[in-house]
Amino acid sequence: MPRPANPETRSKLLEKGGDLVSSHGFNATGVQEITDAAGVPKGSFYNYFESKEAFAVEVLAGYWSSVAELYGPLLREKETPPIHRIVNYFRGLADFHKRRRYAVGCLIGNMALEVTPSSTEVRAKLISIYREWSEALADCLREAQARKELAAAKDPKQLAAVLIDTFEGTVMRAKVERSGKPFDNFEKSVLPYLLT
Amino acid sequence: MPRPANPETRSKLLEKGGDLVSSHGFNATGVQEITDAAGVPKGSFYNYFESKEAFAVEVLAGYWSSVAELYGPLLREKETPPIHRIVNYFRGLADFHKRRRYAVGCLIGNMALEVTPSSTEVRAKLISIYREWSEALADCLREAQARKELAAAKDPKQLAAVLIDTFEGTVMRAKVERSGKPFDNFEKSVLPYLLT
Repeated sequence: MPRPANPETRSKLLEKGGDLVSSHGFNATGVQEITDAAGVPKGSFYNYFESKEAFAVEVLAGYWSSVAELYGPLLREKETPPIHRIVNYFRGLADFHKRRRYAVGCLIGNMALEVTPSSTEVRAKLISIYREWSEALADCLREAQARKELAAAKDPKQLAAVLIDTFEGTVMRAKVERSGKPFDNFEKSVLPYLLT
Repeated sequence: MPRPANPETRSKLLEKGGDLVSSHGFNATGVQEITDAAGVPKGSFYNYFESKEAFAVEVLAGYWSSVAELYGPLLREKETPPIHRIVNYFRGLADFHKRRRYAVGCLIGNMALEVTPSSTEVRAKLISIYREWSEALADCLREAQARKELAAAKDPKQLAAVLIDTFEGTVMRAKVERSGKPFDNFEKSVLPYLLT
């Protein structure tokens, strides 16, 4: 693969192509559509990405980075009690989905269900994202335990995993119903029971 | 659309095609592959289904019927306390995913994330499945309340929705990790907290 000649083209492919993959799904989006959206010839795609799967891995990485950058700080706000930080964090994510009218879903979840069976690369990336996501939440849960805001018997990593899984299922229903009600349920009927 | 001449062909298309859609996804499965799997000419697909979306709706309906038939009775076992029935029910579903090596996922979740954006028919079917699924669980939760096994203040329909969402997120992680650990987490770290 020759070195990418133009980093701007690369970014544009990731941005415009990423939007298409988020909205319509990985398999519903062809390379041609990605290059059309970025305004470059189809053939140039493979100058930038070894395969459509390699492209998907980078789109996922970019999605996760921007979510972590936007909402991650809410988990580290020292002046806020850790449990409240977690509530604020998921409220932030719910707001993110609200701005996309609940129609797009979470790219992590979308790729997890659609692309995992066919791509070991995407699957490996998802495993590492799940791990980072769990760690960020577990750090906050450990702080909650240190401050006696959370039962000491709870396993922070396990609880972090459960919070992510519950949230991803919530995003799923919100996408089906195109409604924010599942997020309200999550905040009122899930978080208070799990975060005790 | 002419009336289907051969109900057996129809069943075969639904069965073989449904397997493909479950394993590889809706958009990754072409009509040609569906008809090949069923051993019929491609053109005959449209004698049986108005569109690929109409086919997806029937595959979904079949999937939901078989899940409801296999595991639904666990929610109505009168001699078992309702909360235990719910635990048994989700254990049954976890076992279903185990037998498919966690690699396939739940067709409801797969379709919810992949097909909802492009098909109003599939979305409508998913809404009705979610409703039936919630109702089946809510009935059992109401029995639990009547027997004072579940806090009277809880809204059974809301709790049923939360159980489904949490379970769907669990199936998702299991699919990414190809592991049953998320289901163990669900049983040990979610159900006891939500079902109080």
